[in-house]
Amino acid sequence: MAKVLAINAGSSTLKWKLFSMPEEQVIASGMVDRLNLPGSLFKVKLANGEKFTETQDNITNKLAAAMVLTRLKSYGILSHLSEITGVGHRIVAGGEIFKDSAVITPTVLRQIKALKDYAPLHNPVQAYYIEVFTQLLPRAQQVAVFDTSLYAQMPAVNYMYSIPYSYYEKFGARKYGAHGTSHRYVAMRTAELLGKPLADLKLITLHLGSGSSITAFDHGKALDTSMGFTPLAGVMMGTRSGDIDASLVAFLAEKLQKTMPEIIAILNNKSGLLGISELSPDQRDLEQTQADRPKSKLALDMFVSRVVQYVGSYIAELGGVDAIVFTAGSGENGIEMRQTIADKLAYFGIVIDPTKNDCRGKERVVSPEGTPVQVLVVPTNEELMIVRDVTRLTT
Amino acid sequence: MAKVLAINAGSSTLKWKLFSMPEEQVIASGMVDRLNLPGSLFKVKLANGEKFTETQDNITNKLAAAMVLTRLKSYGILSHLSEITGVGHRIVAGGEIFKDSAVITPTVLRQIKALKDYAPLHNPVQAYYIEVFTQLLPRAQQVAVFDTSLYAQMPAVNYMYSIPYSYYEKFGARKYGAHGTSHRYVAMRTAELLGKPLADLKLITLHLGSGSSITAFDHGKALDTSMGFTPLAGVMMGTRSGDIDASLVAFLAEKLQKTMPEIIAILNNKSGLLGISELSPDQRDLEQTQADRPKSKLALDMFVSRVVQYVGSYIAELGGVDAIVFTAGSGENGIEMRQTIADKLAYFGIVIDPTKNDCRGKERVVSPEGTPVQVLVVPTNEELMIVRDVTRLTT
Repeated sequence: MAKVLAINAGSSTLKWKLFSMPEEQVIASGMVDRLNLPGSLFKVKLANGEKFTETQDNITNKLAAAMVLTRLKSYGILSHLSEITGVGHRIVAGGEIFKDSAVITPTVLRQIKALKDYAPLHNPVQAYYIEVFTQLLPRAQQVAVFDTSLYAQMPAVNYMYSIPYSYYEKFGARKYGAHGTSHRYVAMRTAELLGKPLADLKLITLHLGSGSSITAFDHGKALDTSMGFTPLAGVMMGTRSGDIDASLVAFLAEKLQKTMPEIIAILNNKSGLLGISELSPDQRDLEQTQADRPKSKLALDMFVSRVVQYVGSYIAELGGVDAIVFTAGSGENGIEMRQTIADKLAYFGIVIDPTKNDCRGKERVVSPEGTPVQVLVVPTNEELMIVRDVTRLTT
Repeated sequence: MAKVLAINAGSSTLKWKLFSMPEEQVIASGMVDRLNLPGSLFKVKLANGEKFTETQDNITNKLAAAMVLTRLKSYGILSHLSEITGVGHRIVAGGEIFKDSAVITPTVLRQIKALKDYAPLHNPVQAYYIEVFTQLLPRAQQVAVFDTSLYAQMPAVNYMYSIPYSYYEKFGARKYGAHGTSHRYVAMRTAELLGKPLADLKLITLHLGSGSSITAFDHGKALDTSMGFTPLAGVMMGTRSGDIDASLVAFLAEKLQKTMPEIIAILNNKSGLLGISELSPDQRDLEQTQADRPKSKLALDMFVSRVVQYVGSYIAELGGVDAIVFTAGSGENGIEMRQTIADKLAYFGIVIDPTKNDCRGKERVVSPEGTPVQVLVVPTNEELMIVRDVTRLTT
């Protein structure tokens, strides 16, 4: 039995999950929060339900990694660190170089660092964790799993922006997408649940969370996706605007007397559901208040409308669709939201059975028997996808 | 018989058309080009086919207006200026104030000027022509016909951007759309051709020219449109990018060391078909070269793809569609382009008969008998719509 660790590092958090493979059982999982800040939080959950929390000031990235391993030993999960045979690292930006996950080599590591322009808050810290875990676990194979690799081979007609061609050649200005690991997992799982090869299906996967993206799969390959050069583009999100008229960037900078980076920050952090509702980026808060607050209702209506528009455009691109799949926080738990979206897509034969749909976080087909388009809820599992990639590429 | 003048003023051009009403016959039309520049060109075409061209340096806006009237007299089209009973002015930006065309009053004129922020190159000069023609034709009624009024009453869910709500309240940051007069004419004419009330139809009108926009009509009202806060947004155009990731504005400004207004200018003037093809903003040039130039082919493919995506998203918003209508330069003349778009939309029951489609600039249904979605070509006629509005509002 091999143990494989999935690492998902953000700018101030380190999330991890330890699996036994090939059983795909979670042995332990955890998160270190408020890294490099007073009151860093170290949390672990074991398979038997036991939970541990430690608080300590200024846990560094390096210390966080070391603590994960030492605690796994002290909780009796590991007898020896060498039991961990592989570590899979989520990497946000893979550019056009990485069309699949990749075993770490000095070259791969250098390339990940060189792609920092495309994910300045993520690639450098994620590359750093690769180095740290390589030191801590010298016998384990390290694998990089990119959010973008699913989209690296989209057709040019969809990844190119209609701006001067040379900006693509010189600066890599193209659609890279994001959430690829989630969409990839959900698409694969959908094919299994429908009992058909992924290569036979036209799918639209809706990753709807605080960040949201929609991907069209044409016979197993990503045809198009809603996130763009950055995760700002696409559907409306919790705090991100999604698609807007680019002229607004200049207009708002002038009106607000702010710099471009400040405007982009507003579009990333103060827009979306939060910006419209003036209350919360969380759909649950808006659902609870929509009866009394027109802005809560408008924010929810806009969110649904943008999702419906993307689904319509992807049905057009695909020339039909076999299944629509909901995943991620809102996608898995938003019963009312799923129903509203399906109602608006009824023209395409997309129907939800309210009884089947009355579930949160469950894997199931929620469309009635015999409808032309299957509608599914599939809880995402990026960490599982990551450790599967480790296993696939190293054994 | 009344004579009504339609005025379409740009920053350096004055286009005009004189109609006899209610017959809706064009008596004369013309254009003054290179205004306020050396070698200004004054061109007139009469109903009998006669053409006149004069060249004169630095024709001012005021002189251009006066010349139109004096030449109409000298060509024998008018015996007396008082025969012109109405003048309709195309106005680019009507903001949220103008939900219909409006008879000019001092208040209306002041409001048009006050909306200059939303069309800095157009509203001031268009307001100026209202003043000039009011002086020259004191007995004629002046009417403003707004590009945006069709969209002033779209539902908030479609006109709002998912940015902080206060930017809408404070700065009017919303979707205004454009080409409204064209879409309005084409939708009305489509209803006539189909022999059904516009109020019974779900239509998608495709104004595809050097500027392109797509509008969804739900039972006579504009439900959504592809142009946004400015005409930069929406589908790919001759030189305009259409929708892109707003982050690219900041990214490109940094990479190119240019200011925001410079980047917006690039997105307006050097992007779109021209930017991708590196050859021409004109689809005809790209069709002629696509066999040998991959970038010409890519530009055309991207254009078609963006149009197809919008049609799909509007079918989703409308919950179906009764007719798809092509208009404007490429829409009326792009035989191959119409066929390619329809082929990609076949899943929705959108089919073109190649024999019927083999026409340029003709008004006709090009879908086969008995197909679920009618496809039409309807040459646009914004000037006719303008003089109809003059007649409707002043008699």
